[in-house]
Order: sequence, then structure tokens, then C-alpha cells
Amino acid sequence: MPKTILESLMIGTAQVLPHNELEKKLSKHKPLRIKFGMDPTAPDLHLGHAVVLSKLRQFQDFGHTIILLIGDFTALIGDPTGRSKTRPALTSEEIAINAQTYISQVSKILDPKKIEVRYNSEWLDKITSREWIKLCAKVSLAKIIEREDFALRIANHSHISLHELLYPLVQGYDSVALRADIELGGTDQTFNVLMGRYLQEHFEQDPQVIMTMPILEGLDGVQKMSKSYGNYIGITEAPDQAYGKLMSISDELMWRYYQLLLHKSSSEIEIMQKNILEEQAHPMALKKAMAYGVIERFWSKPEADYAESQFTKLFNKKDYTAAQEISLPAGTNNPIEPIVLLRLLEAAKTNSEASRLIASGALSIDGIKHTDFKIHIVYKSGTIIKVGKHIFFKII
Amino acid sequence: MPKTILESLMIGTAQVLPHNELEKKLSKHKPLRIKFGMDPTAPDLHLGHAVVLSKLRQFQDFGHTIILLIGDFTALIGDPTGRSKTRPALTSEEIAINAQTYISQVSKILDPKKIEVRYNSEWLDKITSREWIKLCAKVSLAKIIEREDFALRIANHSHISLHELLYPLVQGYDSVALRADIELGGTDQTFNVLMGRYLQEHFEQDPQVIMTMPILEGLDGVQKMSKSYGNYIGITEAPDQAYGKLMSISDELMWRYYQLLLHKSSSEIEIMQKNILEEQAHPMALKKAMAYGVIERFWSKPEADYAESQFTKLFNKKDYTAAQEISLPAGTNNPIEPIVLLRLLEAAKTNSEASRLIASGALSIDGIKHTDFKIHIVYKSGTIIKVGKHIFFKII
Repeated sequence: MPKTILESLMIGTAQVLPHNELEKKLSKHKPLRIKFGMDPTAPDLHLGHAVVLSKLRQFQDFGHTIILLIGDFTALIGDPTGRSKTRPALTSEEIAINAQTYISQVSKILDPKKIEVRYNSEWLDKITSREWIKLCAKVSLAKIIEREDFALRIANHSHISLHELLYPLVQGYDSVALRADIELGGTDQTFNVLMGRYLQEHFEQDPQVIMTMPILEGLDGVQKMSKSYGNYIGITEAPDQAYGKLMSISDELMWRYYQLLLHKSSSEIEIMQKNILEEQAHPMALKKAMAYGVIERFWSKPEADYAESQFTKLFNKKDYTAAQEISLPAGTNNPIEPIVLLRLLEAAKTNSEASRLIASGALSIDGIKHTDFKIHIVYKSGTIIKVGKHIFFKII
Repeated sequence: MPKTILESLMIGTAQVLPHNELEKKLSKHKPLRIKFGMDPTAPDLHLGHAVVLSKLRQFQDFGHTIILLIGDFTALIGDPTGRSKTRPALTSEEIAINAQTYISQVSKILDPKKIEVRYNSEWLDKITSREWIKLCAKVSLAKIIEREDFALRIANHSHISLHELLYPLVQGYDSVALRADIELGGTDQTFNVLMGRYLQEHFEQDPQVIMTMPILEGLDGVQKMSKSYGNYIGITEAPDQAYGKLMSISDELMWRYYQLLLHKSSSEIEIMQKNILEEQAHPMALKKAMAYGVIERFWSKPEADYAESQFTKLFNKKDYTAAQEISLPAGTNNPIEPIVLLRLLEAAKTNSEASRLIASGALSIDGIKHTDFKIHIVYKSGTIIKVGKHIFFKII
């Protein structure tokens, strides 16, 4: 096989287990079945997902089949202990809608014609009582509680329900049912994807190769990108908004985005870093190139051009004509409290987030910073409201 | 309710959990559903089983229903790990035959007309995949591994397959399906029967009361009575053979048999012990009374009379006409090695057992003890062979 295929698949990949089997499978020159699991309770994609999806796209481009596995079986059950209010049981209809949302989003990165969509209830609902016992017999308690979060909870004497131990098995059995050749996941999924390999061996199948992708840090550079941390860039966001958010990340995090979202190799990144040190390049210019590259890759070239021009207008030329024009709802108090204002502008999701923004000095009205959230702001048509470094609103 | 019913149910009972609920259930004066589980892989009953069966008989006599639960679900599966060669999967036909054998044996103690026989595959085979998840969600890993053998194996880093954790749940669910009011078991079953109570509460049923019975020691007085230890008295053995075995136990163990098999109270036993100390009674006489009582109770009065007379003939009068008459197979060497002789007489199951018997001085030929297993014994018609204290053969 040409070395270049294997090499390009390795770029940005955290781990391949076992490496020689990947080479072997690729060398068969047959379309491989690449499994990728999707959680139907959270259909909104962000750039954190794009890391794995880009890798899947590479596989598609090399002629392989992506199996989008929708884990509806557990979503249909919800949290049977009733402990988690955030995991209600979904109906089949809700799952179908979420899956459709998800598929239309991944189609920004993947070729939808080369995706096989499967729901795991198809085979999991058919497992009989006796088969469950036999399935559970294939794995030891010791092996299951190797999983990091179980080990941690056992060490902390935290509650683990017995059904939770079955979930890695369920995920592993999906690989058996799909006869997957390769499974992709984030590094936080390593245990679960290895379980697929393990069970396939027990079912006398050629076991899947596992490929894990690094976890992308969110805008804060600390936590992983996640909707629940509010540090994400949604894949359906307006390109200029996404561009602005990309421009807000730290210089350090920029290299990570170059690597994971734009697949720049270590040597390419080293050259850019050297250029900055030697004052051959400005960090701001490289960040703009990264933001442009990401929008071009995951949105489109025209959208990247548009987003870049908007950014340039707003931040370089201070041209507020590019600000988002907004009219406050009729009946809104004038003067208005700053927290209420931020909520009406949807610049903050909660009152506490609004308070934090104001306290940190993120709010300016017509060029004047306001850090006291007890003042009252008088607004009129044409008032410019700036939130953080890059977001501008103009009252109309 | 009359106190006497509760009191007589308490005799020989190790534990009732919770005690006040038993009283409450009995005071309803309605037939209660008493669950008792049977392992269909081992249909041969011995006096160890008789301890629990006698208690069940008491319940029958008070008008309650005994549900004989045949655990065919797991027997049909066998050992899915393939580790245990002694636990092959049984067919439904084999299980039905074993159950029939079992029922005809328990009918020596229980009233067969007042037994409801149930197979747990009836409901366990119907549990769907989703229900399995929900069932497992009802119990924590911590709770399951409280079970003594799991805790021990975890401490010893021994292998536990995940399916083994499901078995207590399966047993517990049986109580839900049966809507059991009371479950009986040996003290070694305490964890499992408590699981039934626990799950019934989760299924919003009035939870079963659990009653555990002490484990009867075998003839050696050390290990629990068990076919695999060879220290048992089968419930279908010939009454004179059983009587002989009962006479072979130690004086100390005799009190235990009085308590567990004949339901003698502590004060009754104390009186007998006092009589021995004051030389008002001879231990041999009390042992004969115990042996007679057990045969009378679990066989019949005529059989007890017969067994006692046989014993008296053999051991008191040394009347060898009561010896088992046996002809050795044609072609048997004469003289014969003692090990071969014991095997032909079926007085020892293995060569090593035969060697042990001979070394311990258990073998006498025509009144002469032989402890050397290398000698050769000459036999003729009328030769009396004594094995241990109570077993006599006469060559014909």
C-alpha cells in the first residue's frame, strides 16, 4: 500500500491500536467499515466533534464506508435509576428528529451519500435473556472496572448501578453486530472502543482496529469543548460569529486548533512558531489564517471570505456598520439594567453569566465601560453595545 | 394469632428477617406463598435438605402453599464461560426428569398435593433487553459485591464473570414474579433471599420475609452435608443403611441432628445431656433413639422398626445373618488384594478411599483386622467382611 494513505490517516490521531493491523486492513484495498457512535440525546455538533469527523471524511475520501451508529437503545431507556434529571427517556420520534438534525450537520463535513446510518436498538432489542447472560459471561468484573470513571467512583465509594456496567458491553456488542473493521472515537472513549475489539474476538470476528482522536479544548483552553461548558463553537453558527470566537482564543490554544482542526503537522507548526519568535510573522495574522482556514474547511470559502471581511470591518476599522442591528422588544424599560440588557441581547444565557461579564469589564456602551450592574443604562436608536472583545450590537 | 404457631415455626430456625413481619403475615390467616428454590442440576436429596423441607412441611400443616421453584433458567444456560466442566447446559427434558426425581423425593417429607411447582424460565425468558437494563439499574455494584463469596474473590483477585453478578438478581426477581410472602433457604443463601426482598420493594410489592435454616453438618461433623463431600445420608437410601450411618456420627454431632432433624428444643437437649452426665442415660441409647426418630420421621415407622432391629442384630448380638450377603464376580482372584475387595463390595468409591479405610483399621476379615493393603486375603463362602463399625458383608 502507498505509505501516504497510512501517513495521512495518522496526522492528528492520538492512538491506533494495534498499528500493524490498521496497515494490514488498509492493504486489502477493500472498502472498510468504519464505526462511529453518536449520542442521540445531544444532536448539536461543535468543532470538538469536527476533529473526529474530519478523520472520518479522510476515510470516506479513501473509499471506505462510515457507519454512523445511533445509540438509540440506551436513549430509549433514559436513566432507569431516576437519579439523573438530565437523562429522560426519549421517544423513537424524538430520537429520529435528533438523528436527522445530527446527520444534516455532519453532512457539512462528511459525504452524506457515503454514510450508513444504523440504530443499535435494531440488534440490542433482539438479545434474549439467555443471550444477555452469555454476553455478560464473556467479560470479567475486573476488566469492566478498569474503566477510569468506574475505578475512580469505586475509590471514592460513589454509587455505581449494575446497569452501568452493561453499557460498555452494549457498545462493544455494537461492533460485533456491525462487523466493524475500525472504530473511531475521542481518547475519552478508549475503554469503550477497546471493548468492541475484545467482544469481536470472543465472537470469533476479525477484531476492529481502534483509532482515538485527541479531545479539543474549548475557547477557554482548559475544559474540553462542550455545550455544557459554554466554551464551544457550534457547527451551525453563523460563520462570522464562529470566526469571532476563533479569534478570541489564546495564542497557545491556536496551535492546538491548527493541529486538530487543520491537520497541520508538528514541523509546519514549528515553522510558524519560529516565524513569530523571529518577528517574521505576527500572532494576530496567524490566528486570522487559522480562523479563516477553519471556516473555509467546515463552512465554505465564500463564508470564510465574508467572515474575515466582517471581522476586519469591526475590529480593524472600528466600522460599526458591521455590528448586529437589534431592536429591543416593545415595552422594555429605558433606562435598563445591564443584566437585563445582556439577556435581551442574548449575549448571556443566565443572569449569573451576565453578572460575570459585567464584573469582568466586558460591557461597553458607546465606548464607555460599565462594571457596575446596578446602574441604569439609557439607550436610543444608534447606541452601540460592545460585549467582550468582538461582539457588537447596534440598537435600531 | 395463637403464639404457638409462631413459636413452633421458630424452632430450629437460624434467622427470620424481619421477625415482626412474619408475625404480621401469619396473623392475616390467609394461605401464604412460601418460596423454596431447587437446583435442577442436583436432584438427589439428603438429610441436609431435610432441615429446610421439614420447616416447609410445618408451613403446609398450617395451611400455607409451598412454591417449589425450579431454577431451570440458569441450568439451561450452564456455565457460559466454559470454565466449569461440572456445569454443562441441561436440556429441558433433562431438567424435567431431574425435577420429577426431586419432587418424588420431597414427597417423602412434603405433601405433594400442596406444592405449586414453577420453573423460572417461565418469566426470566420473557425479560426483554430493556427490562434487563432497568432491572440492573435497581441495584448497585456495591450491594452485589457484599455477597460473601464475591467479596472474598475480589479480595483474592479471583476471576468473577459479569454474568455471575446477575444471578442474585435473577433469584431475587423470582420472588417478584411469584409474589412470594416468605422465602426459605439455608443460612448460606441469606444474601440471595434478601435480594428477593429488596427487589420486591423496588417493584412495590409487600416484601417477603426471609427465614434461614442452619446448615446440617455431614457424617464427619466438619463439612456441611453434601454429595460432593461423600458425608451424606441420601433420602432414598435403604432405611437400615441410613440408620447405620446415623449411628456412626460423633456424640457431639448427635445433638445437632436432634436439634435440626427432630426439632428438639434447647431445653430438651439439655435434659438429655444432663442425664448422660448423671449416668441416667447411655449415649448409645440416645443415639439409637435419634437414629430411630430420623428414620421414623423421614422414612416411616415400620422402616424405623426394621432398621433398628437390623442394627440390633448386627451390632448387639453380632448376628451375622443380618450381614449383606454378596457373591464376588466370577473370575475374581482368590486370594484378593484388600483394595480390590473393598471396591468390589462397593464399600469404597475410589482406590484412595479404600487405602484410607484400610490404613485407618476399618477392615476386618472374620474378626481379624487388616491394615496392610499389600497382603492377599483368602476368602470362601461364609467369610465375614466388616468395614468400619457398622457395615458387614457375608460372601456367599
